[in-house]
Amino acid sequence: MKTVTNVFDLRSTLGAWREKGQRIAFVPTMGALHAGHLALVDHARKSAGKVVVSIFVNPTQFGPGEDFERYPRDLEADAEKLRDAGVDLLFAPPVDVIYPPGFATTVHVAGVSEGMEGARRPGHFDGVATVVARLLCLVLPDVAVFGQKDAQQCAVVMRLVADLGLPVEVRVAPTVREADGLALSSRNAYLTAAERTAAPALFRALLVAQLVHELGEKKPEKVLKAFRLALETEPLISLDSADLVDAATMRPVEKIDRSVLLAAAVKLGRTRLIDNVVFGG
Amino acid sequence: MKTVTNVFDLRSTLGAWREKGQRIAFVPTMGALHAGHLALVDHARKSAGKVVVSIFVNPTQFGPGEDFERYPRDLEADAEKLRDAGVDLLFAPPVDVIYPPGFATTVHVAGVSEGMEGARRPGHFDGVATVVARLLCLVLPDVAVFGQKDAQQCAVVMRLVADLGLPVEVRVAPTVREADGLALSSRNAYLTAAERTAAPALFRALLVAQLVHELGEKKPEKVLKAFRLALETEPLISLDSADLVDAATMRPVEKIDRSVLLAAAVKLGRTRLIDNVVFGG
Repeated sequence: MKTVTNVFDLRSTLGAWREKGQRIAFVPTMGALHAGHLALVDHARKSAGKVVVSIFVNPTQFGPGEDFERYPRDLEADAEKLRDAGVDLLFAPPVDVIYPPGFATTVHVAGVSEGMEGARRPGHFDGVATVVARLLCLVLPDVAVFGQKDAQQCAVVMRLVADLGLPVEVRVAPTVREADGLALSSRNAYLTAAERTAAPALFRALLVAQLVHELGEKKPEKVLKAFRLALETEPLISLDSADLVDAATMRPVEKIDRSVLLAAAVKLGRTRLIDNVVFGG
Repeated sequence: MKTVTNVFDLRSTLGAWREKGQRIAFVPTMGALHAGHLALVDHARKSAGKVVVSIFVNPTQFGPGEDFERYPRDLEADAEKLRDAGVDLLFAPPVDVIYPPGFATTVHVAGVSEGMEGARRPGHFDGVATVVARLLCLVLPDVAVFGQKDAQQCAVVMRLVADLGLPVEVRVAPTVREADGLALSSRNAYLTAAERTAAPALFRALLVAQLVHELGEKKPEKVLKAFRLALETEPLISLDSADLVDAATMRPVEKIDRSVLLAAAVKLGRTRLIDNVVFGG
């Protein structure tokens, strides 16, 4: 595996591959890699001859008071994991390679970015859309792989790629879970032992809600109520948000008569975890 | 010359050329083509084996009350001129090919877009940046050619291309003028005979201002005053705006000690014309 930290080295490596007719798959990450990321890498490997992974903790998608400073960073351990997973190129730029002096562009995706996390984290999806647009333009992969755990982010990226007309196929890979159901997340590293034991209650409550729908309930407020009740059985978890939206538009639905996304964020101590399920339709 | 109106046909034509190793130069236009555009095409021909021109009157860069509806459109005459100029591919999409249903993305370039035309035409440069980003992603040319007459637009496009990391070389071609100095513009077609006779006074006044600097004047307000006085000799012209800014940042300067842009907009009847000169430094 080759590691590059600047645009010139990135482009010359990619250019040499392209001249040989190699297809390129790309997995953008913020590092602190876990088996969820490695599942995206696996998906990428099956999609193209060469796999590029970026590690960049993007400051512009963190709000004031969020965990940008304490976000876990361990480039050496990450590089080791990627090497073992057969990644061909690691792009690990410093902040001023992604945002050089004079950088002045913001990419805003309306609609899908406006509700849910977008409403609660002002500017978050502008930061995501801008950095993803830049990374995709720099790498110009044939395929880019994102994780379903960040469902709204996936919707923003798909919209962005379609709207700019980037020649990139966006793939969304399913969420990877621990044996007890907890979605893998870099932020799981923040959890105390007790919090870690409590954490799977989030996914269990999402499954309870899905089951309530599958038993015949079509009213979003009833399904959401089932979710909240199920979650309340775990005292270490406090609910931050729960949204039931159209899985395509990310807008609230009045009736579950199509594919919907039930997405939730919870707090365990200072740590905020998200997860989601898709059902209906 | 081949004409395409949708993304699929555009991409398959470009893809076939790329497979043969052809370099591609691109000239985005709003049609109503004149010798100024053809000079951009000429520049493009010298830069690459294949030349692509787009004709798209972009609604999002016109403000309310501007001339979107009456903007001159004559696709047949334009296509004829491009054919004669040796253009290889004309991309002439309808509005819903550039902005399909659900389109939700805006590209905003801060800084260079904020003064001058950006301040007077709110949203104008968001419209420009968004459509140029989309066109550049769709065509992915090696070279894109823009005209110096729209100096601030050139600055926005250069910023945008650098910030997104698009692998496109942006070239700025000099303004083409009539024998009497009037900058070629699609909007010149709106002028009455009397207005057309008066119109060259704009460029003459810009040259007067430049001369005043070259004779030793370094104060922007003095140079601007010379410009205004020179323009006042032509009663059919009313001054809309005049700005003297750093040619790189598009920000006002306190002293002419570097390369500056003197950019002006005037009204002749209902018609608004722009022009500029660069000097100093």
